[in-house]
Amino acid sequence: MEIMQVVGRMVCTQRAAGLNHMDLRILRNNSGKQLVAVDPVGAREGNWVFTATGTAARFACPNPATQTDLTIEGIIDYWSPDG
Amino acid sequence: MEIMQVVGRMVCTQRAAGLNHMDLRILRNNSGKQLVAVDPVGAREGNWVFTATGTAARFACPNPATQTDLTIEGIIDYWSPDG
Amino acid sequence: MEIMQVVGRMVCTQRAAGLNHMDLRILRNNSGKQLVAVDPVGAREGNWVFTATGTAARFACPNPATQTDLTIEGIIDYWSPDG
Amino acid sequence: MEIMQVVGRMVCTQRAAGLNHMDLRILRNNSGKQLVAVDPVGAREGNWVFTATGTAARFACPNPATQTDLTIEGIIDYWSPDG
Amino acid sequence: MEIMQVVGRMVCTQRAAGLNHMDLRILRNNSGKQLVAVDPVGAREGNWVFTATGTAARFACPNPATQTDLTIEGIIDYWSPDG
Repeated sequence: MEIMQVVGRMVCTQRAAGLNHMDLRILRNNSGKQLVAVDPVGAREGNWVFTATGTAARFACPNPATQTDLTIEGIIDYWSPDG
Repeated sequence: MEIMQVVGRMVCTQRAAGLNHMDLRILRNNSGKQLVAVDPVGAREGNWVFTATGTAARFACPNPATQTDLTIEGIIDYWSPDG
Repeated sequence: MEIMQVVGRMVCTQRAAGLNHMDLRILRNNSGKQLVAVDPVGAREGNWVFTATGTAARFACPNPATQTDLTIEGIIDYWSPDG
Repeated sequence: MEIMQVVGRMVCTQRAAGLNHMDLRILRNNSGKQLVAVDPVGAREGNWVFTATGTAARFACPNPATQTDLTIEGIIDYWSPDG
Repeated sequence: MEIMQVVGRMVCTQRAAGLNHMDLRILRNNSGKQLVAVDPVGAREGNWVFTATGTAARFACPNPATQTDLTIEGIIDYWSPDG
């Protein structure tokens, strides 16, 4: 999973039927690129999140047939070295 | 999902059977590379769209057996910071 | 799907059983890298083609269990801006 | 599979239901990027591991429905030239 | 499929159950990066091989549930321009 930051919300009136009831977020990855993700966890702008791609992105949604290839899996509290 | 811009249409007389009835579009991604996508939403040249890859690309088509790895999922109206 | 050019043919006597009866082609992608693709459409050296990856690459073959992650989906005649 | 090094542990209270009981690790890949992986093998900070992506990442977990796209598959003891 | 060269063998005592009886090889891709692949064809150090990723990597193994995302599909004899 990749670590990204939430940048904002996206408005999109014409879209694939299978995305209808999901929130779409703009994320920025660690090389500065902006990507669109489905957000089932309720992340807010500025949050650091980790995201799944591929089939895992679909399985992370309430409906696994959601047509997403990038889904927020969790909001990061912090990370720490082992020990 | 990635954000790309529609550049044009592609003509291709010899193609895989499972793509027969789908419109093919040329998109430009954010590093300037041109890619071919299936377009089930009716995007036009100049539109900003977001696209799905992998199995999600197939599920975004009316027929999920469509042999695509890149499908336009929606046309972007605008995006905005949370608030 | 990505746009690539056919460079040549590959000979490979020891290979996975599920590739036995498929033609293998060497393609060059837009950053100059050479890749190996299954060719069910009969492309020739110099042709510009577009290719599918992932599960779509398998579904583009007569037998969807073909062990390919890159398959030629069509030969490009030309592309044009929308009008 | 890619070779990466374990950097630390991640704490994340809000996350997708299907990740609940899995340890999450921060790994560094060979270009210095930090990624989040599910760890079913018990790797420790500093260990060199190899990881699977895609559907293989899910199958490498006790529960194949785990919503992961990166899973540690093994801890590397050493590698050696053939012969 | 990508063209890579076999660099050596990897020893790894703690690994995912589904990889138990498969040989693991270290390959070098065309940008010099080292990757770990399952080898069902018996490649040797120095061989040029082509590899599959994704679901094709699993289907190229005797047991398609093998937890691999990179599998050697064949040993390259030579390649030649079309004629």
